[in-house]
Amino acid sequence: MNTVRKTVEEKVVRKLTSDVPKRRTGVGSRVLGPGDDAAILAPRRDHQTILTCDWFLEGRHFVRDTHPPVAVGWKCVARAVSDIAAMGAQPRCILLSLALPETATRRWLTEFARGVKRACNQLGCPLVGGDTTRDSRILINVTVVGEASPGQAICRSGAQPGDLIYVSGRLGEADLGLQVLRGYRRRRVNKNKKDAILRKHLYPEPRIALGRWLAVGRIATAMMDLSDGLSTDLPRLCSASGVGAQIEAAKIPVVNAEMAAKVGSKRFDPLGLALNGGDDYELLFAVNPRKARQLPRSFRGLPLTSIGKITRERRLTLVQQDGREVLLRSRGWNPFRK
Amino acid sequence: MNTVRKTVEEKVVRKLTSDVPKRRTGVGSRVLGPGDDAAILAPRRDHQTILTCDWFLEGRHFVRDTHPPVAVGWKCVARAVSDIAAMGAQPRCILLSLALPETATRRWLTEFARGVKRACNQLGCPLVGGDTTRDSRILINVTVVGEASPGQAICRSGAQPGDLIYVSGRLGEADLGLQVLRGYRRRRVNKNKKDAILRKHLYPEPRIALGRWLAVGRIATAMMDLSDGLSTDLPRLCSASGVGAQIEAAKIPVVNAEMAAKVGSKRFDPLGLALNGGDDYELLFAVNPRKARQLPRSFRGLPLTSIGKITRERRLTLVQQDGREVLLRSRGWNPFRK
Repeated sequence: MNTVRKTVEEKVVRKLTSDVPKRRTGVGSRVLGPGDDAAILAPRRDHQTILTCDWFLEGRHFVRDTHPPVAVGWKCVARAVSDIAAMGAQPRCILLSLALPETATRRWLTEFARGVKRACNQLGCPLVGGDTTRDSRILINVTVVGEASPGQAICRSGAQPGDLIYVSGRLGEADLGLQVLRGYRRRRVNKNKKDAILRKHLYPEPRIALGRWLAVGRIATAMMDLSDGLSTDLPRLCSASGVGAQIEAAKIPVVNAEMAAKVGSKRFDPLGLALNGGDDYELLFAVNPRKARQLPRSFRGLPLTSIGKITRERRLTLVQQDGREVLLRSRGWNPFRK
Repeated sequence: MNTVRKTVEEKVVRKLTSDVPKRRTGVGSRVLGPGDDAAILAPRRDHQTILTCDWFLEGRHFVRDTHPPVAVGWKCVARAVSDIAAMGAQPRCILLSLALPETATRRWLTEFARGVKRACNQLGCPLVGGDTTRDSRILINVTVVGEASPGQAICRSGAQPGDLIYVSGRLGEADLGLQVLRGYRRRRVNKNKKDAILRKHLYPEPRIALGRWLAVGRIATAMMDLSDGLSTDLPRLCSASGVGAQIEAAKIPVVNAEMAAKVGSKRFDPLGLALNGGDDYELLFAVNPRKARQLPRSFRGLPLTSIGKITRERRLTLVQQDGREVLLRSRGWNPFRK
C-alpha cells in the first residue's frame, strides 16, 4: 500500500469518526460505519440499505484526452456499483454529482451521458438525483444506494483461518488495457485487437450477480472488490478480519497469454499485473472449506479460482512458482502515480 | 431564472435523464427523480427514503484563507441537510467524500473534522461512510439520506393559485455576512459584533424541525430551501408548480436594521440582499389560505412571514414599496456565471 496514501486516508477517516457518540437513531440505525466497501443502515427490521460513494476525478482517475467520454460515464457508475456488489447487495439507484468546465458541456457531455445511461440501464440502477456545478476540471462523484436482507451483506471482517481465498475473473487485464491505451499514440496497435484488451479498463463490469449469489447462499465469509490490486486489497481484507493469508503464484489467474501476445510488449509481466494492477473490479472472497464444494469452477462464464488460504498468523505470503515462500509486498498500484 | 445557468444546468440534467426507461424496480422504486431538492425512493410501502447530494468546492463555494475550516466542516453538512429539511423529511445519516491536498491534512483537517462532527451531532445524522482521495484542491461532496412517511414529503410542484407564500427567518443575512467577511482584511470590524453577523453565512441552520412540522401537519403545498436567493429560487418553485407569483417588497423580512448598522456599509441594500443574496437556507413554502390560520407568527423563535401569493398567471412580479408592480428579476447565485 502506498504509504502516503495509507497515512492520509487513515488519518482522514480517524479524524472524522473519532469521538462521535455511537447511538442508534431509530430508523437509519447504523449497522456498519466507515471502513468497509459500503455502509449498512437498517431503516426497518426486515430491510437494510447499503450506501457507498466514489470519486472519479479528471487528471487523477481519468484523463480527458485519453479516455473516451462514453467510457468515463460507464466507468464512474460501474466502479461505484462495484462497492455494492462487493457487499453482496443489490444496487437500486444512483445520485450523480457533476462539476464541468464550459468546454465539456457539449459533445463531451453528450457522450458521457450516453455512458452513464447505458451503465444505469444495464446495471439496473436508475439515476434519481445529484448536483451540478461548474469547475475548471471535470469532477465526478457517484453515490449508490443498494439493498440487502438483514444478515446477508458480506463484510471484509468475517474471514476465518482455514478459509479458502477466491477471486473471480482474471487479474491484471485492466492494467494491461491502460498500458495499451497509454502506448496507443506512440505505437501502432491494431484497433480491433486493441478493443478487447481495452474493454476491462474502460468498461469494467461490477460482479453484481456473483456477489448476490454468494450473499444469498451465505457462501462467502468475507468479501471485497479488487480496485487497487490484489497485493493492496488482500491486506485490507486480512486486516479487517484480524488474520493473515498465504497465496500461490501458480494458482493466480493471470492475463490470458493469447491476449497478452497481441500487445507485444517485451516488458509484459503477467504475475506483476495480477498482483499490483488496479481497476479490475473482480471479487476477492473467503470461503469455509466445507462450503467450497458448492462453488462452481465458473459462475455464468466467469472463472472462480482458489488462490490460497486464510492463516491464523497475521502475515501475508506468496508461494512463488519455484516453491519459495516470500512476504507479499503491497505495491498498491496507482494509475496516475508520478 | 438566469439564462446561462438554466441552459447549462438544465442541459446537463436533460442529457443525463432523457431516454431513460421509467420502470419500477421493486424495492428502490423511484417516486420522484431529478429536479426537486432531493430524490424520493420507496423501498417499502410504509417507508420513503429521501436522498440528496451537494458539492462544496474550494475556490467556488468557499475560500481556504477566508473561511475557517471548522465552518467549512459545519456548512458542507448543514447545506446538504437543508435539502432534506426542504422536503419536510428527517435526515438520518451522511456520506462524506473528501479530496485533500497534503497541505490540508493536518490542522485544517482537524478543524474541519470538528465542524463536521458538530454538525452531524447537532443535526442528528451520523457520518456512516464516504470516500477519500488526494487532490490539488479541497473538494467536498456530501450525500444525505433522510426519511419520511409516504405522502409526507413536500415537493416544489404542489403550489396552487391563491396559496400564500411564506418564508422563514430573515433573508439576506448570510450574504451580508459574506460581505463583512470579504471586507474583514480591508476594514477593522469589531470582532464580537462581527461574529453575530457572520453566523448565518458560516454556520447556517437547516430548518429541520419547521420542515417536519409543515410536512407532518400537511400544511405546505410546495416547499424548497432558499440557497441561491429568493429571486432565483421562487421562479424554480413556480416553474415546478406551473404557476406564477406576486410578492410584496414591504412584507419581505429583511436584515435587522440594528445588525446592518453595525456593518456600517454605505452600499448596504436590505431589499437587494433579501431578494438576491444566497446561502440563507431558510424555507420558502406555499400554504392554502384556509390552512394559513394554523401557522404561528413564529415557530420556535423563528419568524414565519407571508410575503405574497401564488398566481395563475405564470409571471413573477414584485410590488415595490411605492406600490408599483414590476417584473421580478432573477439575480441570485449562479455557478455558471463568470
